[in-house]
Amino acid sequence: MRGGGPRRLRKRSLQAAFASCVRLAKSSWLTIKMVHAEAFSRPLSRNEVVGLIFRLTIFGAVTYFTIKWMVDAIDPTRKQKVEAQKQAEKLMKQIGVKNVKLSEYEMSIAAHLVDPLNMHVTWSDIAGLDDVITDLKDTVILPIKKKHLFENSRLLQPPKGVLLYGPPGCGKTLIAKATAKEAGCRFINLQPSTLTDKWYGESQKLAAAVFSLAIKLQPSIIFIDEIDSFLRNRSSSDHEATAMMKAQFMSLWDGLDTDHSCQVIVMGATNRPQDLDSAIMRRMPTRFHINQPVGVFD
Amino acid sequence: MRGGGPRRLRKRSLQAAFASCVRLAKSSWLTIKMVHAEAFSRPLSRNEVVGLIFRLTIFGAVTYFTIKWMVDAIDPTRKQKVEAQKQAEKLMKQIGVKNVKLSEYEMSIAAHLVDPLNMHVTWSDIAGLDDVITDLKDTVILPIKKKHLFENSRLLQPPKGVLLYGPPGCGKTLIAKATAKEAGCRFINLQPSTLTDKWYGESQKLAAAVFSLAIKLQPSIIFIDEIDSFLRNRSSSDHEATAMMKAQFMSLWDGLDTDHSCQVIVMGATNRPQDLDSAIMRRMPTRFHINQPVGVFD
Repeated sequence: MRGGGPRRLRKRSLQAAFASCVRLAKSSWLTIKMVHAEAFSRPLSRNEVVGLIFRLTIFGAVTYFTIKWMVDAIDPTRKQKVEAQKQAEKLMKQIGVKNVKLSEYEMSIAAHLVDPLNMHVTWSDIAGLDDVITDLKDTVILPIKKKHLFENSRLLQPPKGVLLYGPPGCGKTLIAKATAKEAGCRFINLQPSTLTDKWYGESQKLAAAVFSLAIKLQPSIIFIDEIDSFLRNRSSSDHEATAMMKAQFMSLWDGLDTDHSCQVIVMGATNRPQDLDSAIMRRMPTRFHINQPVGVFD
Repeated sequence: MRGGGPRRLRKRSLQAAFASCVRLAKSSWLTIKMVHAEAFSRPLSRNEVVGLIFRLTIFGAVTYFTIKWMVDAIDPTRKQKVEAQKQAEKLMKQIGVKNVKLSEYEMSIAAHLVDPLNMHVTWSDIAGLDDVITDLKDTVILPIKKKHLFENSRLLQPPKGVLLYGPPGCGKTLIAKATAKEAGCRFINLQPSTLTDKWYGESQKLAAAVFSLAIKLQPSIIFIDEIDSFLRNRSSSDHEATAMMKAQFMSLWDGLDTDHSCQVIVMGATNRPQDLDSAIMRRMPTRFHINQPVGVFD
């Protein structure tokens, strides 16, 4: 029975403390009431109300602009990001992408989506490359467009990478344009300048965002013009940011996380295939040599 | 049973401490009430108001300059950028460019716009190159100036690139000067030193800005003197930043995004055309060999 003693004691002390708190609150409230009772009870004059609203407005505006200025000043890439976001939102509306939530980095990449309606090159505009076009249609575009026909075959899945190589001015970019127009999937025109960022770590995050965006929008094609400059032979003299960016790109392209049912194709065009890294070459099993057109005038 | 002793002791001491805290709070509250009740109710004197405003101003100014200093310290190229921006704004006012919003990078490039009024070379100042001048006027300048006459023909569009090559001192730069004065379009005198930047990724962004600026100001001519140094033969020993910059330049010059109705011409001058990359040569279909003038004294 005596075991209840300390508990009771604790209860009493708590009660006492609570009561003293209540007393304190009551007394302070009373004083505030006494001082302000008069001020609170009489109605505010018109001048007072206007003055109050005016001061509040000024205060709000100053706070807003100060914080905006500070945020702009602290984050040096903010302006670009905001612009990229606007551009991306406009493009995605045009293309008809809906209900997709994108991160900041994905927005920067999404600003380079290609609207098929802006492309004016069709397959019939390309002369002298009929074999290449037929092959490209069969191996890349058909398995995307008629996915249900190829579902049961692992051999007939679209390739993870397509390389167009050959001398300058023979139609590599033209073929890419026609693909963007007619493939019926999202087409990202990736520029190396979008990926490189002077701030530490940002380049890698952007490289990762390329693939996360492509997966969100799938089926999609990531097109890299002059791919030899961005994904060239790795060497020990590479800048570490470039090395990490390449590694990130490769591991997302075909790595541990890659889901084999996802329809993301990387398409590259280059004049200098010998400069490409062997690990990149491996990821582009479908290669087209686009040479000077022959037989057009025969 | 005696084990409860120390605990009780601790509790009592806690209670005592709590009670003293409450007493202290009460007494301090009372004093605050007594001191401030009067201060709150009487109006502020002129000195107090002035002092308050003065202190607030000082505080605001210190905050402003601290943040400004921090921002300057964080972004190492800020000073150059601010100067370039001033220069660009002045130039654009002179030339009469209005309502064009430029990014930071485009501003850096816009600082190299040429004001035609500052050029004092006209076509009539160039002797012995009449054939070249006539050709240049017909193929490049007329299609820009009289755009409406050539709209329906794809063959008579101005070329994407013009190359002036030949031995030193024979009038290549003179022709460029006269073009800047008389072509009636924006003329950007691009220096490779503007494009190169020691910070990672900035060079590529500047290379991209050249074309985005030229498109915003179109019709425009981008002039690159000694083009062989900047756009020379690509090789696997290129610095990666240079390689990416060249690739960026090429893909924006004539790539996937290039709109064929946009009027941006790249004009190059060189003594060593054999050093130019084949992909660059391909993009300059209009080439003028500017040799020693002959026939002037015949």
